[in-house]
Amino acid sequence: MQELPEVTDPRIIDGKKIAQGIEADVKRGVEEFISEHGIRPALATILVGEHPPSKLYVKLKHWACKRVGIISEDHKLPQETTQEEIIGLIATMNKRPEIHGILVQLPLPGHIDEREVMMQISPKKDVDGFNPLNMGKMLIGREGFVPCTPKGIIRALEESKIDPHGMEVVVVGHSNVVGKPAAIMLLNRNATVKVCHVYTKDLKSHTVEADILIVATGVRGLIKADMVKEGAIVFDVGITWQDNKVYGDVDFDDVLPRVGLISPVPGGVGPMTIAILMEHTLMAARMQR
Amino acid sequence: MQELPEVTDPRIIDGKKIAQGIEADVKRGVEEFISEHGIRPALATILVGEHPPSKLYVKLKHWACKRVGIISEDHKLPQETTQEEIIGLIATMNKRPEIHGILVQLPLPGHIDEREVMMQISPKKDVDGFNPLNMGKMLIGREGFVPCTPKGIIRALEESKIDPHGMEVVVVGHSNVVGKPAAIMLLNRNATVKVCHVYTKDLKSHTVEADILIVATGVRGLIKADMVKEGAIVFDVGITWQDNKVYGDVDFDDVLPRVGLISPVPGGVGPMTIAILMEHTLMAARMQR
Repeated sequence: MQELPEVTDPRIIDGKKIAQGIEADVKRGVEEFISEHGIRPALATILVGEHPPSKLYVKLKHWACKRVGIISEDHKLPQETTQEEIIGLIATMNKRPEIHGILVQLPLPGHIDEREVMMQISPKKDVDGFNPLNMGKMLIGREGFVPCTPKGIIRALEESKIDPHGMEVVVVGHSNVVGKPAAIMLLNRNATVKVCHVYTKDLKSHTVEADILIVATGVRGLIKADMVKEGAIVFDVGITWQDNKVYGDVDFDDVLPRVGLISPVPGGVGPMTIAILMEHTLMAARMQR
Repeated sequence: MQELPEVTDPRIIDGKKIAQGIEADVKRGVEEFISEHGIRPALATILVGEHPPSKLYVKLKHWACKRVGIISEDHKLPQETTQEEIIGLIATMNKRPEIHGILVQLPLPGHIDEREVMMQISPKKDVDGFNPLNMGKMLIGREGFVPCTPKGIIRALEESKIDPHGMEVVVVGHSNVVGKPAAIMLLNRNATVKVCHVYTKDLKSHTVEADILIVATGVRGLIKADMVKEGAIVFDVGITWQDNKVYGDVDFDDVLPRVGLISPVPGGVGPMTIAILMEHTLMAARMQR
Protein backbone atom coordinates (compact mmCIF):
# COMPACT_ATOMS: atom_id res chain seq x y z
CA MET A 1 0.00 0.00 0.00
CA GLN A 2 1.35 3.42 -0.92
CA GLU A 3 2.07 5.86 1.86
CA LEU A 4 -0.20 8.87 1.51
CA PRO A 5 1.79 12.10 1.12
CA GLU A 6 0.85 14.93 3.47
CA VAL A 7 -1.76 17.21 1.91
CA THR A 8 -0.81 20.89 1.93
CA ASP A 9 -2.61 22.09 -1.23
CA PRO A 10 -6.00 23.55 -0.19
CA ARG A 11 -7.50 22.31 -3.47
CA ILE A 12 -6.94 18.69 -2.45
CA ILE A 13 -9.47 17.00 -0.16
CA ASP A 14 -7.56 15.37 2.69
CA GLY A 15 -9.64 12.23 3.16
CA LYS A 16 -7.26 10.82 5.72
CA LYS A 17 -7.75 13.83 7.98
CA ILE A 18 -11.56 13.75 7.61
CA ALA A 19 -11.47 10.00 8.30
CA GLN A 20 -9.48 10.59 11.48
CA GLY A 21 -12.13 13.07 12.63
CA ILE A 22 -14.91 10.54 11.96
CA GLU A 23 -13.01 7.78 13.73
CA ALA A 24 -12.43 10.00 16.79
CA ASP A 25 -16.21 10.58 16.99
CA VAL A 26 -16.93 6.87 16.57
CA LYS A 27 -14.39 5.99 19.25
CA ARG A 28 -16.14 8.30 21.73
CA GLY A 29 -19.52 6.86 20.68
CA VAL A 30 -18.27 3.30 21.19
CA GLU A 31 -17.10 4.14 24.72
CA GLU A 32 -20.48 5.68 25.53
CA PHE A 33 -22.25 2.66 24.06
CA ILE A 34 -20.19 0.26 26.17
CA SER A 35 -20.75 2.21 29.39
CA GLU A 36 -24.49 2.33 28.65
CA HIS A 37 -25.09 -1.24 27.48
CA GLY A 38 -22.15 -3.20 28.84
CA ILE A 39 -21.35 -4.71 25.44
CA ARG A 40 -19.03 -3.75 22.61
CA PRO A 41 -20.21 -3.16 19.00
CA ALA A 42 -19.07 -5.94 16.67
CA LEU A 43 -18.56 -6.28 12.92
CA ALA A 44 -18.30 -9.59 11.05
CA THR A 45 -16.50 -9.52 7.71
CA ILE A 46 -16.84 -12.18 5.04
CA LEU A 47 -14.11 -12.52 2.44
CA VAL A 48 -14.35 -15.09 -0.34
CA GLY A 49 -11.25 -16.06 -2.29
CA GLU A 50 -7.77 -14.63 -2.63
CA HIS A 51 -8.30 -11.35 -4.53
CA PRO A 52 -5.31 -9.33 -3.19
CA PRO A 53 -6.98 -5.88 -3.05
CA SER A 54 -10.00 -7.40 -1.29
CA LYS A 55 -7.72 -9.02 1.27
CA LEU A 56 -6.07 -5.65 1.85
CA TYR A 57 -9.40 -3.82 2.22
CA VAL A 58 -10.64 -6.35 4.76
CA LYS A 59 -7.39 -6.04 6.70
CA LEU A 60 -7.75 -2.23 6.71
CA LYS A 61 -11.30 -2.59 8.02
CA HIS A 62 -10.13 -4.81 10.88
CA TRP A 63 -7.39 -2.31 11.75
CA ALA A 64 -9.97 0.47 11.83
CA CYS A 65 -12.18 -1.62 14.14
CA LYS A 66 -9.24 -1.99 16.49
CA ARG A 67 -8.57 1.77 16.46
CA VAL A 68 -12.16 2.70 17.38
CA GLY A 69 -12.79 -0.18 19.81
CA ILE A 70 -15.16 -2.29 17.67
CA ILE A 71 -14.84 -6.08 17.86
CA SER A 72 -14.15 -7.57 14.44
CA GLU A 73 -14.71 -11.15 13.42
CA ASP A 74 -12.93 -12.40 10.33
CA HIS A 75 -14.56 -15.02 8.11
CA LYS A 76 -12.41 -16.18 5.22
CA LEU A 77 -13.91 -18.62 2.74
CA PRO A 78 -12.17 -20.36 -0.18
CA GLN A 79 -12.69 -19.19 -3.77
CA GLU A 80 -14.85 -22.22 -4.59
CA THR A 81 -17.39 -21.57 -1.79
CA THR A 82 -20.95 -21.98 -3.07
CA GLN A 83 -23.58 -19.27 -2.93
CA GLU A 84 -25.60 -21.44 -0.52
CA GLU A 85 -22.64 -21.64 1.86
CA ILE A 86 -22.18 -17.85 1.86
CA ILE A 87 -25.91 -17.34 2.41
CA GLY A 88 -25.80 -19.90 5.23
CA LEU A 89 -22.97 -18.03 6.95
CA ILE A 90 -24.88 -14.74 6.57
CA ALA A 91 -27.97 -16.39 8.10
CA THR A 92 -25.89 -17.41 11.12
CA MET A 93 -24.52 -13.88 11.49
CA ASN A 94 -28.04 -12.43 11.15
CA LYS A 95 -29.13 -14.57 14.11
CA ARG A 96 -26.20 -13.92 16.45
CA PRO A 97 -27.24 -10.98 18.67
CA GLU A 98 -23.66 -10.05 19.57
CA ILE A 99 -22.85 -9.32 15.89
CA HIS A 100 -24.19 -5.88 14.92
CA GLY A 101 -22.82 -5.38 11.44
CA ILE A 102 -22.11 -7.74 8.52
CA LEU A 103 -19.82 -6.82 5.68
CA VAL A 104 -19.40 -9.02 2.61
CA GLN A 105 -16.32 -7.85 0.73
CA LEU A 106 -17.03 -7.27 -2.95
CA PRO A 107 -16.38 -8.36 -5.64
CA LEU A 108 -17.45 -11.97 -5.03
CA PRO A 109 -16.20 -14.75 -7.35
CA GLY A 110 -17.94 -14.91 -10.73
CA HIS A 111 -20.09 -17.96 -9.88
CA ILE A 112 -21.86 -16.01 -7.10
CA ASP A 113 -24.84 -13.69 -7.68
CA GLU A 114 -23.78 -10.65 -5.63
CA ARG A 115 -27.22 -9.07 -5.56
CA GLU A 116 -28.74 -12.30 -4.25
CA VAL A 117 -26.14 -12.44 -1.48
CA MET A 118 -26.65 -8.78 -0.54
CA MET A 119 -30.39 -9.38 -0.17
CA GLN A 120 -29.70 -11.95 2.56
CA ILE A 121 -27.98 -9.55 4.95
CA SER A 122 -30.48 -8.39 7.58
CA PRO A 123 -31.30 -4.73 6.81
CA LYS A 124 -30.48 -3.91 10.44
CA LYS A 125 -26.94 -5.30 10.10
CA ASP A 126 -26.38 -4.04 6.55
CA VAL A 127 -23.57 -1.60 7.36
CA ASP A 128 -22.49 -1.40 3.69
CA GLY A 129 -25.99 -0.26 2.64
CA PHE A 130 -26.35 -2.73 -0.23
CA ASN A 131 -29.53 -4.50 0.89
CA PRO A 132 -32.32 -3.39 -1.48
CA LEU A 133 -34.53 -2.29 1.43
CA ASN A 134 -31.87 0.20 2.51
CA MET A 135 -31.27 1.18 -1.13
CA GLY A 136 -35.00 1.81 -1.55
CA LYS A 137 -35.20 3.90 1.61
CA MET A 138 -32.34 5.99 0.26
CA LEU A 139 -34.19 6.35 -3.05
CA ILE A 140 -37.25 7.82 -1.32
CA GLY A 141 -35.06 10.17 0.70
CA ARG A 142 -34.81 8.28 3.99
CA GLU A 143 -31.10 7.69 4.12
CA GLY A 144 -30.06 5.23 6.82
CA PHE A 145 -27.45 2.64 5.89
CA VAL A 146 -26.27 3.90 2.51
CA PRO A 147 -23.23 2.78 0.51
CA CYS A 148 -20.08 4.12 2.17
CA THR A 149 -18.35 5.62 -0.88
CA PRO A 150 -21.17 7.96 -1.94
CA LYS A 151 -21.68 8.85 1.71
CA GLY A 152 -18.00 9.78 1.80
CA ILE A 153 -18.59 12.17 -1.10
CA ILE A 154 -21.49 13.81 0.75
CA ARG A 155 -19.39 14.05 3.91
CA ALA A 156 -16.46 15.61 2.05
CA LEU A 157 -18.81 18.23 0.56
CA GLU A 158 -20.14 18.99 4.03
CA GLU A 159 -16.63 19.29 5.47
CA SER A 160 -15.80 21.70 2.63
CA LYS A 161 -19.01 23.69 3.34
CA ILE A 162 -20.33 23.06 -0.17
CA ASP A 163 -24.11 22.73 -0.55
CA PRO A 164 -24.90 20.91 -3.84
CA HIS A 165 -28.43 22.42 -3.92
CA GLY A 166 -29.04 23.66 -7.47
CA MET A 167 -25.53 22.74 -8.64
CA GLU A 168 -24.90 20.64 -11.74
CA VAL A 169 -23.58 17.23 -10.86
CA VAL A 170 -22.32 14.75 -13.44
CA VAL A 171 -21.70 11.18 -12.30
CA VAL A 172 -19.64 8.99 -14.63
CA GLY A 173 -20.40 5.32 -13.98
CA HIS A 174 -23.79 3.76 -13.15
CA SER A 175 -22.83 0.92 -10.84
CA ASN A 176 -25.12 -0.17 -8.01
CA VAL A 177 -22.43 0.47 -5.41
CA VAL A 178 -21.26 3.96 -6.36
CA GLY A 179 -22.75 5.66 -9.43
CA LYS A 180 -26.47 5.12 -8.85
CA PRO A 181 -26.44 5.77 -5.07
CA ALA A 182 -24.23 8.85 -5.52
CA ALA A 183 -26.73 10.21 -8.06
CA ILE A 184 -29.66 9.53 -5.73
CA MET A 185 -27.98 11.10 -2.70
CA LEU A 186 -27.17 14.25 -4.68
CA LEU A 187 -30.73 14.36 -6.04
CA ASN A 188 -31.98 14.09 -2.46
CA ARG A 189 -29.98 17.28 -1.83
CA ASN A 190 -31.61 19.00 -4.81
CA ALA A 191 -28.67 19.05 -7.18
CA THR A 192 -29.38 18.72 -10.90
CA VAL A 193 -27.88 15.30 -11.62
CA LYS A 194 -26.76 13.58 -14.80
CA VAL A 195 -25.48 10.00 -14.95
CA CYS A 196 -23.13 9.03 -17.77
CA HIS A 197 -21.47 5.66 -18.38
CA VAL A 198 -19.77 3.48 -20.93
CA TYR A 199 -22.71 3.81 -23.36
CA THR A 200 -22.81 7.62 -23.19
CA LYS A 201 -21.91 9.34 -26.44
CA ASP A 202 -19.29 12.12 -26.40
CA LEU A 203 -18.53 11.89 -22.68
CA LYS A 204 -16.52 15.10 -22.69
CA SER A 205 -19.52 17.18 -23.80
CA HIS A 206 -21.22 16.11 -20.56
CA THR A 207 -18.34 16.27 -18.09
CA VAL A 208 -17.42 19.86 -19.01
CA GLU A 209 -20.85 20.97 -17.77
CA ALA A 210 -20.29 19.70 -14.23
CA ASP A 211 -19.94 21.94 -11.19
CA ILE A 212 -19.36 18.68 -9.32
CA LEU A 213 -17.89 15.78 -11.29
CA ILE A 214 -17.95 12.30 -9.74
CA VAL A 215 -16.03 9.60 -11.58
CA ALA A 216 -16.38 5.92 -10.69
CA THR A 217 -15.55 3.77 -13.70
CA GLY A 218 -12.33 1.91 -12.96
CA VAL A 219 -10.78 3.22 -16.18
CA ARG A 220 -7.38 4.61 -15.22
CA GLY A 221 -6.80 8.22 -16.27
CA LEU A 222 -10.11 8.51 -18.16
CA ILE A 223 -10.64 12.16 -17.18
CA LYS A 224 -8.21 14.74 -18.62
CA ALA A 225 -8.04 18.50 -18.06
CA ASP A 226 -10.03 19.36 -21.19
CA MET A 227 -12.98 17.32 -19.86
CA VAL A 228 -13.28 19.41 -16.71
CA LYS A 229 -14.87 22.82 -16.26
CA GLU A 230 -12.61 25.53 -14.82
CA GLY A 231 -13.09 25.62 -11.05
CA ALA A 232 -15.05 22.35 -10.86
CA ILE A 233 -15.13 20.08 -7.82
CA VAL A 234 -13.88 16.65 -8.88
CA PHE A 235 -14.38 13.40 -6.97
CA ASP A 236 -12.21 10.59 -8.25
CA VAL A 237 -13.54 7.38 -6.75
CA GLY A 238 -12.41 4.92 -9.42
CA ILE A 239 -9.73 2.42 -8.50
CA THR A 240 -7.34 0.53 -10.74
CA TRP A 241 -4.63 -1.68 -9.23
CA GLN A 242 -1.40 -1.93 -11.19
CA ASP A 243 1.87 -3.32 -9.82
CA ASN A 244 0.59 -3.07 -6.24
CA LYS A 245 -0.30 0.60 -6.63
CA VAL A 246 -3.72 2.21 -6.99
CA TYR A 247 -4.61 4.66 -9.72
CA GLY A 248 -7.76 6.72 -10.11
CA ASP A 249 -10.01 7.51 -13.07
CA VAL A 250 -8.76 11.10 -13.14
CA ASP A 251 -5.42 12.14 -14.61
CA PHE A 252 -4.54 14.02 -11.44
CA ASP A 253 -1.53 16.06 -12.56
CA ASP A 254 -3.28 17.10 -15.76
CA VAL A 255 -6.56 18.06 -14.05
CA LEU A 256 -5.28 19.71 -10.84
CA PRO A 257 -4.55 23.16 -12.36
CA ARG A 258 -8.18 23.48 -13.53
CA VAL A 259 -10.10 22.35 -10.44
CA GLY A 260 -11.51 24.25 -7.51
CA LEU A 261 -11.30 21.16 -5.33
CA ILE A 262 -10.36 17.53 -5.96
CA SER A 263 -10.68 14.24 -4.11
CA PRO A 264 -7.69 12.19 -5.33
CA VAL A 265 -6.88 8.48 -5.54
CA PRO A 266 -5.32 7.49 -3.24
CA GLY A 267 -6.09 9.64 -0.20
CA GLY A 268 -9.47 11.25 -0.91
CA VAL A 269 -12.81 9.60 -0.31
CA GLY A 270 -11.10 6.19 -0.06
CA PRO A 271 -9.88 6.44 3.55
CA MET A 272 -13.24 7.98 4.50
CA THR A 273 -15.25 4.94 3.39
CA ILE A 274 -13.69 2.78 6.09
CA ALA A 275 -14.35 5.42 8.75
CA ILE A 276 -17.97 5.57 7.60
CA LEU A 277 -18.20 1.79 7.87
CA MET A 278 -17.15 2.17 11.52
CA GLU A 279 -19.83 4.82 11.98
CA HIS A 280 -22.44 2.51 10.47
CA THR A 281 -21.41 -0.37 12.73
CA LEU A 282 -21.90 1.82 15.80
CA MET A 283 -25.24 2.99 14.33
CA ALA A 284 -26.26 -0.66 13.83
CA ALA A 285 -25.31 -1.53 17.42
CA ARG A 286 -27.43 1.37 18.70
CA MET A 287 -30.39 0.34 16.51
CA GLN A 288 -30.23 -3.19 17.88
CA ARG A 289 -30.52 -2.16 21.54
CA MET B 1 -63.77 13.04 -17.30
CA GLN B 2 -62.95 14.23 -20.80
CA GLU B 3 -63.62 11.86 -23.65
CA LEU B 4 -60.35 10.98 -25.34
CA PRO B 5 -60.36 11.96 -29.03
CA GLU B 6 -59.39 9.24 -31.48
CA VAL B 7 -55.67 9.35 -32.24
CA THR B 8 -54.83 9.46 -35.93
CA ASP B 9 -51.56 11.44 -35.85
CA PRO B 10 -48.66 8.93 -35.87
CA ARG B 11 -46.62 11.33 -33.71
CA ILE B 12 -49.08 10.91 -30.84
CA ILE B 13 -48.75 7.89 -28.54
CA ASP B 14 -52.17 6.27 -28.24
CA GLY B 15 -52.07 5.18 -24.61
CA LYS B 16 -55.66 4.01 -24.67
CA LYS B 17 -54.91 1.55 -27.47
CA ILE B 18 -51.76 0.25 -25.75
CA ALA B 19 -53.73 -0.06 -22.50
CA GLN B 20 -56.40 -2.11 -24.28
CA GLY B 21 -53.69 -4.47 -25.54
CA ILE B 22 -52.28 -4.89 -22.03
CA GLU B 23 -55.75 -5.46 -20.57
CA ALA B 24 -56.52 -8.11 -23.20
CA ASP B 25 -53.34 -9.97 -22.16
CA VAL B 26 -54.21 -9.62 -18.47
CA LYS B 27 -57.74 -10.89 -19.11
CA ARG B 28 -56.36 -14.04 -20.78
CA GLY B 29 -53.86 -14.44 -17.91
CA VAL B 30 -56.61 -14.10 -15.32
CA GLU B 31 -58.66 -16.83 -17.02
CA GLU B 32 -55.64 -19.13 -17.09
CA PHE B 33 -54.92 -18.36 -13.44
CA ILE B 34 -58.49 -19.20 -12.43
CA SER B 35 -58.54 -22.47 -14.36
CA GLU B 36 -55.20 -23.42 -12.80
CA HIS B 37 -55.78 -22.39 -9.18
CA GLY B 38 -59.55 -22.18 -8.83
CA ILE B 39 -59.40 -18.68 -7.39
CA ARG B 40 -59.67 -15.21 -8.85
CA PRO B 41 -56.98 -12.52 -8.41
CA ALA B 42 -58.11 -9.73 -6.09
CA LEU B 43 -57.09 -6.12 -5.51
CA ALA B 44 -57.95 -4.09 -2.41
CA THR B 45 -57.95 -0.31 -2.80
CA ILE B 46 -57.72 2.12 0.09
CA LEU B 47 -58.94 5.68 -0.42
CA VAL B 48 -58.72 8.25 2.37
CA GLY B 49 -60.81 11.42 2.21
CA GLU B 50 -62.80 13.13 -0.52
CA HIS B 51 -60.16 14.37 -3.00
CA PRO B 52 -62.22 14.32 -6.24
CA PRO B 53 -59.44 13.22 -8.68
CA SER B 54 -58.45 10.45 -6.25
CA LYS B 55 -62.04 9.24 -6.09
CA LEU B 56 -62.14 9.20 -9.88
CA TYR B 57 -58.84 7.30 -10.17
CA VAL B 58 -60.01 4.65 -7.70
CA LYS B 59 -63.28 4.28 -9.61
CA LEU B 60 -61.36 3.86 -12.88
CA LYS B 61 -59.23 1.17 -11.23
CA HIS B 62 -62.32 -0.75 -10.11
CA TRP B 63 -63.78 -0.53 -13.61
CA ALA B 64 -60.55 -1.89 -15.05
CA CYS B 65 -60.66 -4.78 -12.55
CA LYS B 66 -64.16 -5.61 -13.75
CA ARG B 67 -63.04 -5.56 -17.41
CA VAL B 68 -60.16 -8.00 -16.85
CA GLY B 69 -61.92 -10.24 -14.31
CA ILE B 70 -60.06 -9.21 -11.15
CA ILE B 71 -62.03 -8.96 -7.88
CA SER B 72 -61.81 -5.49 -6.41
CA GLU B 73 -62.47 -4.55 -2.84
CA ASP B 74 -63.14 -0.92 -2.06
CA HIS B 75 -62.06 0.56 1.28
CA LYS B 76 -63.06 4.19 1.80
CA LEU B 77 -61.89 5.94 4.95
CA PRO B 78 -62.81 9.42 6.16
CA GLN B 79 -60.40 12.34 5.81
CA GLU B 80 -59.63 12.37 9.55
CA THR B 81 -58.50 8.71 9.66
CA THR B 82 -55.30 8.34 11.69
CA GLN B 83 -52.08 6.88 10.35
CA GLU B 84 -52.44 4.00 12.81
CA GLU B 85 -55.87 3.15 11.44
CA ILE B 86 -54.57 3.09 7.85
CA ILE B 87 -51.62 0.94 8.89
CA GLY B 88 -54.01 -1.35 10.78
CA LEU B 89 -56.15 -1.82 7.67
CA ILE B 90 -53.06 -2.55 5.59
CA ALA B 91 -51.95 -5.13 8.16
CA THR B 92 -55.31 -6.88 7.80
CA MET B 93 -55.02 -6.86 4.00
CA ASN B 94 -51.45 -8.17 4.23
CA LYS B 95 -52.74 -11.15 6.22
CA ARG B 96 -55.78 -12.04 4.09
CA PRO B 97 -54.61 -14.71 1.61
CA GLU B 98 -57.46 -14.01 -0.85
CA ILE B 99 -56.23 -10.42 -1.36
CA HIS B 100 -53.28 -10.38 -3.77
CA GLY B 101 -52.67 -6.69 -4.34
CA ILE B 102 -53.05 -3.61 -2.13
CA LEU B 103 -53.29 -0.13 -3.56
CA VAL B 104 -53.28 2.97 -1.34
CA GLN B 105 -54.44 5.90 -3.45
CA LEU B 106 -52.07 8.87 -3.18
CA PRO B 107 -51.97 11.63 -2.12
CA LEU B 108 -52.92 10.90 1.48
CA PRO B 109 -54.15 13.71 3.76
CA GLY B 110 -51.44 16.02 5.09
CA HIS B 111 -51.38 14.55 8.60
CA ILE B 112 -50.29 11.14 7.24
CA ASP B 113 -46.66 10.20 6.49
CA GLU B 114 -47.05 8.61 3.05
CA ARG B 115 -43.63 6.96 3.07
CA GLU B 116 -44.37 5.35 6.44
CA VAL B 117 -47.66 3.98 5.09
CA MET B 118 -46.05 2.66 1.89
CA MET B 119 -43.50 0.76 3.96
CA GLN B 120 -46.31 -1.21 5.61
CA ILE B 121 -47.64 -2.81 2.42
CA SER B 122 -46.25 -6.32 2.09
CA PRO B 123 -43.67 -6.25 -0.74
CA LYS B 124 -45.52 -9.22 -2.30
CA LYS B 125 -48.79 -7.28 -2.51
CA ASP B 126 -47.21 -3.93 -3.39
CA VAL B 127 -48.73 -3.61 -6.88
CA ASP B 128 -47.96 0.13 -7.03
CA GLY B 129 -44.24 -0.52 -6.45
CA PHE B 130 -43.82 2.08 -3.71
CA ASN B 131 -42.53 -0.18 -0.93
CA PRO B 132 -38.83 0.67 -0.45
CA LEU B 133 -37.81 -2.98 -0.88
CA ASN B 134 -39.29 -2.99 -4.38
CA MET B 135 -37.83 0.48 -5.04
CA GLY B 136 -34.41 -0.81 -3.97
CA LYS B 137 -34.66 -3.89 -6.17
CA MET B 138 -35.47 -1.60 -9.07
CA LEU B 139 -32.46 0.55 -8.19
CA ILE B 140 -30.11 -2.44 -8.44
CA GLY B 141 -31.68 -3.48 -11.74
CA ARG B 142 -34.08 -6.19 -10.57
CA GLU B 143 -37.34 -4.66 -11.64
CA GLY B 144 -40.39 -6.44 -10.21
CA PHE B 145 -43.18 -4.28 -8.86
CA VAL B 146 -42.16 -0.84 -10.05
CA PRO B 147 -44.22 2.36 -10.07
CA CYS B 148 -46.86 2.14 -12.81
CA THR B 149 -46.32 5.52 -14.50
CA PRO B 150 -42.59 5.09 -15.27
CA LYS B 151 -43.34 1.52 -16.33
CA GLY B 152 -45.91 2.97 -18.71
CA ILE B 153 -43.18 5.13 -20.24
CA ILE B 154 -40.95 2.10 -20.73
CA ARG B 155 -43.84 0.14 -22.25
CA ALA B 156 -44.72 2.98 -24.64
CA LEU B 157 -41.08 3.10 -25.79
CA GLU B 158 -41.14 -0.65 -26.38
CA GLU B 159 -44.43 -0.44 -28.31
CA SER B 160 -42.84 2.29 -30.46
CA LYS B 161 -39.72 0.12 -30.96
CA ILE B 162 -37.46 2.74 -29.40
CA ASP B 163 -34.44 1.47 -27.47
CA PRO B 164 -33.23 4.21 -25.08
CA HIS B 165 -29.72 2.64 -24.93
CA GLY B 166 -27.20 5.48 -25.35
CA MET B 167 -29.91 8.11 -25.83
CA GLU B 168 -30.01 11.32 -23.81
CA VAL B 169 -32.91 11.35 -21.42
CA VAL B 170 -33.91 14.40 -19.39
CA VAL B 171 -36.43 13.91 -16.60
CA VAL B 172 -38.04 17.05 -15.18
CA GLY B 173 -39.30 16.40 -11.64
CA HIS B 174 -37.62 14.32 -8.94
CA SER B 175 -40.59 12.86 -7.08
CA ASN B 176 -40.42 9.42 -5.51
CA VAL B 177 -43.38 8.17 -7.56
CA VAL B 178 -42.40 9.29 -11.07
CA GLY B 179 -39.18 11.28 -11.56
CA LYS B 180 -36.71 9.20 -9.59
CA PRO B 181 -38.04 5.76 -10.67
CA ALA B 182 -38.26 6.90 -14.32
CA ALA B 183 -34.62 8.00 -14.15
CA ILE B 184 -33.56 4.68 -12.62
CA MET B 185 -35.48 2.56 -15.13
CA LEU B 186 -33.93 4.47 -18.04
CA LEU B 187 -30.48 4.15 -16.46
CA ASN B 188 -31.11 0.41 -16.17
CA ARG B 189 -31.59 0.48 -19.95
CA ASN B 190 -28.29 2.32 -20.42
CA ALA B 191 -29.62 5.71 -21.38
CA THR B 192 -27.63 8.78 -20.31
CA VAL B 193 -29.99 10.31 -17.78
CA LYS B 194 -30.30 13.79 -16.29
CA VAL B 195 -32.81 14.73 -13.61
CA CYS B 196 -33.93 18.36 -13.35
CA HIS B 197 -36.46 19.89 -10.95
CA VAL B 198 -37.69 23.08 -9.36
CA TYR B 199 -34.19 23.94 -8.12
CA THR B 200 -32.53 23.47 -11.50
CA LYS B 201 -31.13 26.66 -13.00
CA ASP B 202 -32.03 27.56 -16.60
CA LEU B 203 -34.29 24.54 -17.20
CA LYS B 204 -34.50 25.19 -20.95
CA SER B 205 -30.74 24.75 -21.40
CA HIS B 206 -31.21 21.18 -20.15
CA THR B 207 -34.47 20.19 -21.82
CA VAL B 208 -33.25 21.16 -25.31
CA GLU B 209 -30.56 18.48 -25.03
CA ALA B 210 -33.06 15.63 -24.58
CA ASP B 211 -33.64 12.90 -27.14
CA ILE B 212 -36.29 11.70 -24.68
CA LEU B 213 -37.89 14.32 -22.45
CA ILE B 214 -40.02 13.15 -19.51
CA VAL B 215 -41.94 15.84 -17.65
CA ALA B 216 -43.63 15.16 -14.31
CA THR B 217 -43.95 18.38 -12.34
CA GLY B 218 -47.65 19.25 -12.11
CA VAL B 219 -46.96 22.73 -13.53
CA ARG B 220 -49.49 23.24 -16.33
CA GLY B 221 -47.92 24.16 -19.68
CA LEU B 222 -44.37 24.38 -18.30
CA ILE B 223 -42.77 23.01 -21.49
CA LYS B 224 -42.99 25.17 -24.63
CA ALA B 225 -41.73 24.46 -28.14
CA ASP B 226 -38.45 26.35 -27.67
CA MET B 227 -37.55 24.04 -24.79
CA VAL B 228 -37.72 20.91 -26.94
CA LYS B 229 -35.17 19.58 -29.38
CA GLU B 230 -36.39 19.07 -32.96
CA GLY B 231 -37.56 15.47 -33.34
CA ALA B 232 -37.50 14.68 -29.60
CA ILE B 233 -39.68 12.07 -27.92
CA VAL B 234 -41.72 13.82 -25.23
CA PHE B 235 -43.55 12.14 -22.35
CA ASP B 236 -45.95 14.43 -20.58
CA VAL B 237 -46.90 12.75 -17.31
CA GLY B 238 -47.76 15.82 -15.25
CA ILE B 239 -51.38 16.34 -14.23
CA THR B 240 -53.17 19.54 -13.26
CA TRP B 241 -56.93 19.49 -12.62
CA GLN B 242 -58.77 22.69 -13.50
CA ASP B 243 -62.57 22.97 -13.82
CA ASN B 244 -62.94 19.18 -13.99
CA LYS B 245 -60.47 18.87 -16.84
CA VAL B 246 -56.89 17.60 -16.79
CA TYR B 247 -53.96 19.48 -18.26
CA GLY B 248 -50.40 18.32 -18.73
CA ASP B 249 -47.02 19.93 -18.10
CA VAL B 250 -46.43 20.28 -21.85
CA ASP B 251 -48.03 22.98 -24.00
CA PHE B 252 -49.22 20.37 -26.46
CA ASP B 253 -50.27 22.53 -29.42
CA ASP B 254 -47.09 24.59 -29.20
CA VAL B 255 -44.79 21.56 -28.91
CA LEU B 256 -46.42 19.09 -31.34
CA PRO B 257 -44.88 20.55 -34.55
CA ARG B 258 -41.36 19.99 -33.13
CA VAL B 259 -41.62 16.47 -31.73
CA GLY B 260 -40.90 13.09 -33.25
CA LEU B 261 -43.31 11.43 -30.82
CA ILE B 262 -45.38 12.66 -27.89
CA SER B 263 -47.33 11.11 -25.04
CA PRO B 264 -50.09 13.64 -24.29
CA VAL B 265 -52.25 14.47 -21.27
CA PRO B 266 -54.90 13.15 -21.33
CA GLY B 267 -54.61 9.93 -23.34
CA GLY B 268 -50.92 8.99 -23.27
CA VAL B 269 -49.23 7.11 -20.46
CA GLY B 270 -52.20 7.89 -18.16
CA PRO B 271 -54.56 5.15 -19.35
CA MET B 272 -51.61 2.72 -19.45
CA THR B 273 -50.86 3.08 -15.73
CA ILE B 274 -54.15 1.47 -14.79
CA ALA B 275 -53.61 -1.39 -17.23
CA ILE B 276 -50.17 -1.94 -15.70
CA LEU B 277 -51.75 -2.00 -12.25
CA MET B 278 -53.94 -4.86 -13.50
CA GLU B 279 -50.85 -6.63 -14.84
CA HIS B 280 -49.14 -6.22 -11.45
CA THR B 281 -52.17 -7.60 -9.60
CA LEU B 282 -52.10 -10.74 -11.75
CA MET B 283 -48.32 -10.94 -11.20
CA ALA B 284 -48.90 -10.67 -7.43
CA ALA B 285 -51.51 -13.42 -7.51
CA ARG B 286 -49.10 -15.70 -9.40
CA MET B 287 -46.27 -14.93 -6.94
CA GLN B 288 -48.51 -15.84 -4.01
CA ARG B 289 -49.37 -19.33 -5.27
